[in-house]
Amino acid sequence: MTATVNESTRNGVDTATLFATLDAVKAAPEAAKFQFRATNEWLSGTHNRSTIADFYGVGEERSHERMFTFDADHPAVLVGRDNGPTPVEFVLHALAACLTAGLANIAAARGIRLTRVHSTVTGDIDLNGILGLNPEVRNGYERISVRFAIKGDAPAEKLRELIEQSRARSAVFDVITNQVPVTIEVETS
Amino acid sequence: MTATVNESTRNGVDTATLFATLDAVKAAPEAAKFQFRATNEWLSGTHNRSTIADFYGVGEERSHERMFTFDADHPAVLVGRDNGPTPVEFVLHALAACLTAGLANIAAARGIRLTRVHSTVTGDIDLNGILGLNPEVRNGYERISVRFAIKGDAPAEKLRELIEQSRARSAVFDVITNQVPVTIEVETS
Repeated sequence: MTATVNESTRNGVDTATLFATLDAVKAAPEAAKFQFRATNEWLSGTHNRSTIADFYGVGEERSHERMFTFDADHPAVLVGRDNGPTPVEFVLHALAACLTAGLANIAAARGIRLTRVHSTVTGDIDLNGILGLNPEVRNGYERISVRFAIKGDAPAEKLRELIEQSRARSAVFDVITNQVPVTIEVETS
Repeated sequence: MTATVNESTRNGVDTATLFATLDAVKAAPEAAKFQFRATNEWLSGTHNRSTIADFYGVGEERSHERMFTFDADHPAVLVGRDNGPTPVEFVLHALAACLTAGLANIAAARGIRLTRVHSTVTGDIDLNGILGLNPEVRNGYERISVRFAIKGDAPAEKLRELIEQSRARSAVFDVITNQVPVTIEVETS
């Protein structure tokens, strides 16, 4: 067991750096203030493209190693051309990705080696809301369900605890299950 | 004006189909019940990949015209390898994409021709929350700001009204600013 715990990389997580980062933020909490950003350009109809390139964190402006671009659109059945997933599908991807990234970090910190983590996220939505046809129906998802299949070198109960801790510390889970204030400014010219 | 209103495509939106879809859903509200889905596979560390392929809507199982895959990761400063944006950055993309798609549809329905729509979305987050270092700090974004630059063949006030109506009918805006119940199930083997 000692040999496993002393390995600096577990589940692809550099645990030494992970713990060093935690210590650094403990010593200088301001380092943890981040601003993430996306810019979006409308292309045609429901088709538009976002670029994710830079962010602020640990006291300075930073860039991703490369620029990421993502197209969104509606499928034909929703009067689009299916040039990308719908915006609401990206929300499901974000939730799965956040829970899974946290899970790998937490497992590494706890000395648990994961061999497989697979998840399916489903979101039920009644488009009578966004279509403005029924004021009783909300615009967004009515409910979201996540189903994880997880394998690793720990008893089932320990694996379940990883998911529970990941949920308890997930940024996207918080954004979806709680309220975030959003301001919108418009410049016309 | 009549000529403009009668055009079947405006801003790349097939308005005839848009109105026909609205009429169809008015006649059969169950058609608007959709389920969207993403599956995610953990790769290594904070790097994982989602696939978006099929969904349910208008009474039957459907597939996108192609399968979409998206990688998420953390940047090096957050102990990842920057193989993709962070999960929280995908949330900003989803918000920009949703507001922009709605805007194009609403403008088309109102007979307004758009020439440019650009937006920047920023999200402020204090990672003392997800790092578990300060129980007073939430896990998710503290605030999100959207800045739109919009040009079209209508007075500024009409263009601003488009954004306001898009906000009022945005699924992702609702998901972020209100609460969605999320259940998580875990299968271990």
